[in-house]
Amino acid sequence: MELPVRKIAELVKGEVVGDGDFIIRGVAAFDNAGPDDITFAASADFKKRIDETSAAAVIVSYDVCESKKILVRVKNPSLALSKVSALFHTVYRPEVGIGQDAHVGKNFRCGVDVSVYPGVFIGDDVTLGDRVTLHPGVVIDNRVMVGDEVVVYPNVCILERCEIGSRVIIHAGSVIGSDGFGFAFDGDCYHKIPQAGIVRIDDDVEIGACNTIDRATFGRTWIKRGVKTDNLVHIAHNVVVGEDTVLVAQVGVSGSVTIGNRAILAGQAGVAQHVAIGNRVTIGGQSGVTKSVPDDQVMSGTPAMPHRLWLKVSSIIPKLPEMKKRIKELEKRIKKLEKS
Amino acid sequence: MELPVRKIAELVKGEVVGDGDFIIRGVAAFDNAGPDDITFAASADFKKRIDETSAAAVIVSYDVCESKKILVRVKNPSLALSKVSALFHTVYRPEVGIGQDAHVGKNFRCGVDVSVYPGVFIGDDVTLGDRVTLHPGVVIDNRVMVGDEVVVYPNVCILERCEIGSRVIIHAGSVIGSDGFGFAFDGDCYHKIPQAGIVRIDDDVEIGACNTIDRATFGRTWIKRGVKTDNLVHIAHNVVVGEDTVLVAQVGVSGSVTIGNRAILAGQAGVAQHVAIGNRVTIGGQSGVTKSVPDDQVMSGTPAMPHRLWLKVSSIIPKLPEMKKRIKELEKRIKKLEKS
Amino acid sequence: MELPVRKIAELVKGEVVGDGDFIIRGVAAFDNAGPDDITFAASADFKKRIDETSAAAVIVSYDVCESKKILVRVKNPSLALSKVSALFHTVYRPEVGIGQDAHVGKNFRCGVDVSVYPGVFIGDDVTLGDRVTLHPGVVIDNRVMVGDEVVVYPNVCILERCEIGSRVIIHAGSVIGSDGFGFAFDGDCYHKIPQAGIVRIDDDVEIGACNTIDRATFGRTWIKRGVKTDNLVHIAHNVVVGEDTVLVAQVGVSGSVTIGNRAILAGQAGVAQHVAIGNRVTIGGQSGVTKSVPDDQVMSGTPAMPHRLWLKVSSIIPKLPEMKKRIKELEKRIKKLEKS
Repeated sequence: MELPVRKIAELVKGEVVGDGDFIIRGVAAFDNAGPDDITFAASADFKKRIDETSAAAVIVSYDVCESKKILVRVKNPSLALSKVSALFHTVYRPEVGIGQDAHVGKNFRCGVDVSVYPGVFIGDDVTLGDRVTLHPGVVIDNRVMVGDEVVVYPNVCILERCEIGSRVIIHAGSVIGSDGFGFAFDGDCYHKIPQAGIVRIDDDVEIGACNTIDRATFGRTWIKRGVKTDNLVHIAHNVVVGEDTVLVAQVGVSGSVTIGNRAILAGQAGVAQHVAIGNRVTIGGQSGVTKSVPDDQVMSGTPAMPHRLWLKVSSIIPKLPEMKKRIKELEKRIKKLEKS
Repeated sequence: MELPVRKIAELVKGEVVGDGDFIIRGVAAFDNAGPDDITFAASADFKKRIDETSAAAVIVSYDVCESKKILVRVKNPSLALSKVSALFHTVYRPEVGIGQDAHVGKNFRCGVDVSVYPGVFIGDDVTLGDRVTLHPGVVIDNRVMVGDEVVVYPNVCILERCEIGSRVIIHAGSVIGSDGFGFAFDGDCYHKIPQAGIVRIDDDVEIGACNTIDRATFGRTWIKRGVKTDNLVHIAHNVVVGEDTVLVAQVGVSGSVTIGNRAILAGQAGVAQHVAIGNRVTIGGQSGVTKSVPDDQVMSGTPAMPHRLWLKVSSIIPKLPEMKKRIKELEKRIKKLEKS
Repeated sequence: MELPVRKIAELVKGEVVGDGDFIIRGVAAFDNAGPDDITFAASADFKKRIDETSAAAVIVSYDVCESKKILVRVKNPSLALSKVSALFHTVYRPEVGIGQDAHVGKNFRCGVDVSVYPGVFIGDDVTLGDRVTLHPGVVIDNRVMVGDEVVVYPNVCILERCEIGSRVIIHAGSVIGSDGFGFAFDGDCYHKIPQAGIVRIDDDVEIGACNTIDRATFGRTWIKRGVKTDNLVHIAHNVVVGEDTVLVAQVGVSGSVTIGNRAILAGQAGVAQHVAIGNRVTIGGQSGVTKSVPDDQVMSGTPAMPHRLWLKVSSIIPKLPEMKKRIKELEKRIKKLEKS
């Protein structure tokens, strides 16, 4: 792929400062770019040292005005990068067809141009949309429905009756539709409560590697449009995750939790069962959320509290030994005063 | 499946209030049930609004006496639900036989009516009991022994010499018998300590999705009868988990830990190596257990402390900035007093 | 395997106290050893009760001088154990060859004596070194390069273009080269930033079960020589992990973090993005590291602080209710003094 800077700027609705006819041959990271590459400088750190990259051109925000490098000034450098990078890194489109070692069950309804690799297992009564890719080792259980242009990476399994929308990506090793963790204790031992529901994943969702998303006891566990999950995320039965919400790596969401739209749960955060998290809520890394959180709050810590308060609290925690000393000191001084 | 309420009440040893001859055609969640369904109301919230469900009948505890709905009053609504739901949701029993694409090694000893799906790998000297189901992508390594009526979901692997009891369920993606994490440092680099032991899983255990249960260095890692683990649980080498103990999602148990019977470790809790946790102990979510815990304790927090104390502590933590101010104020006032 | 104690002592450069001609037939744990076994006593607890083992001989450090048992005194008992145990537990070497059900793509370059099990998928343009073992269900994607004597356990997948050194072990279910978690938000929804880089794993690395190691956005995520990871570890895009560093189970490392050589991150610790962790740093279990840590520090807690400070802090946390009372008391007393 070869493109003049000018064309790239057009694509991202940006403004060129410098030689718009310079030919770009690749996209690379700031510190590893070569003389034919375009790179980007989003953080303050990179902006300070733009001239240090070996790249020919740099995508920057409008607050950067000049440089020895060719600049492409844009509103949102990350967004521009996503577009430019997609241009230069065309995703490998596998051969179309159903691999000869793949197992396909009865009543298979299949769209056009699907790519089913060898070693895939497809159960009975499965529906796949157009241009779906199933990588090796994928297991699609009975009565699963998958939309169009879905990519399922190796060794993922999607269990009985689960429903996957269009343009969904599921990374390797993830499990969609394992049984929810439901048992009744009779005072003596545990009895399994059948998990009769499903998992529904809406359009444009991306699920990270080695996620576990449990089917509902009844009804559905529901991952709504545009949700993005990172690796090793656990989502329990009957959870609802709202549109465009982001769950970072190793987050755990307990049963029957509801999360609103455009929320962000940072890495290793945990949410206790039945909690409701509002729209546009941000939960800090490793936080433990045990109570419902209204819209637009930023919460951190265990137990979770407003993030600003947590910043103060977390600066005081390391000073607890000092605080203890000060109290002891006060007690001495007051004793002395009381005596006199 | 069609059953009069009266028959359902008999099954769960309950008492009908209302029309016992009404025909039930399904089980569903409180808010999604239809007019032919039975549902259940376990939490206080649901009990308050029993008349709001569209279900015909509701399973309740004996403290609920009357309603517009038909009631089935029982001692333990969750337990009753598990029985009624099992009745209406008969689990799909796969075809019996060994799939033609399955690989079976030498000296295979196999019970009656097993279901081995295509794409399963069975090594040498493996023993399977009666009515075992191995879903696609399952790997059973050499010399593994599996009891009767075991269900192993897709892409699980059970490694060399591990032993699985009867009526065990292992959910998708779990790894049984990976090497324990043991290395000797020579001052320069790490040398692997061979992990020569096994994992033993007793009867009636259910293992969640994407668990990792390591084999012992010598001897066995031992998951005793009736244990239930949720998803993404880590159990290190030489751990012993007692009967009917519950490990909730993302719990991590370090090497050589012993856990008693009927303990509960809530989500994301971690236990440091060599710790002994007693019988009927409850460990709160995200807690960090670094010291042994005697029988019947409820512990929470990091470091773990008695749960009642943790409740007080966790209500004070957000007030630390205020406490700091109060100490400063006291210091000022005392200084003033000292001067005068 | 049968060996006189004398030969074992030679192997580990140790000194025999007792009958050097006694024939040893196995290695076992302290409390489970039989009368022909050798065992080891590394912890203070075992050292105190050496005569209680049923083993014939015990590997100990030089501070143990005499016992009824035959002693093999060494500098580093764990290291000696790793060598002796490796002697008695020869790892099962699978048959050499490419299983008939394995799928092999175009342009396969393959070393000598490889063992590729049935059910393995190898994409196009893959290179394997000598004596590589690929267990069933392994997926090796296009253009992957693997060195010599690598063991890849069942259901691991190594995605496009990733590079694996020699003598690497990857335990079951791990995912190498999943997409990094990178999205650009346009104020409305998220756009995927292509993850065009790779994962590079150097020689002598051991990766635990169900790890997820993401490919870089550009360039590489880099796991250097001798790194050991436990189970369920998450390593995000563009992370660099230094030589001989140890990541214990369920650790999460965010994007662009760099970790030095010989560091240790204990279980469930989390590291925030862009943080730099120095050489020989130790991070305590469940700690949350949000700022860079210089060489040779030991840090614990959330937010992470020097470990000695954390020990004090964590002993005070359970005393917060008492501290609060003491402050209240002080306030009363000072009020009284002020009045008088």
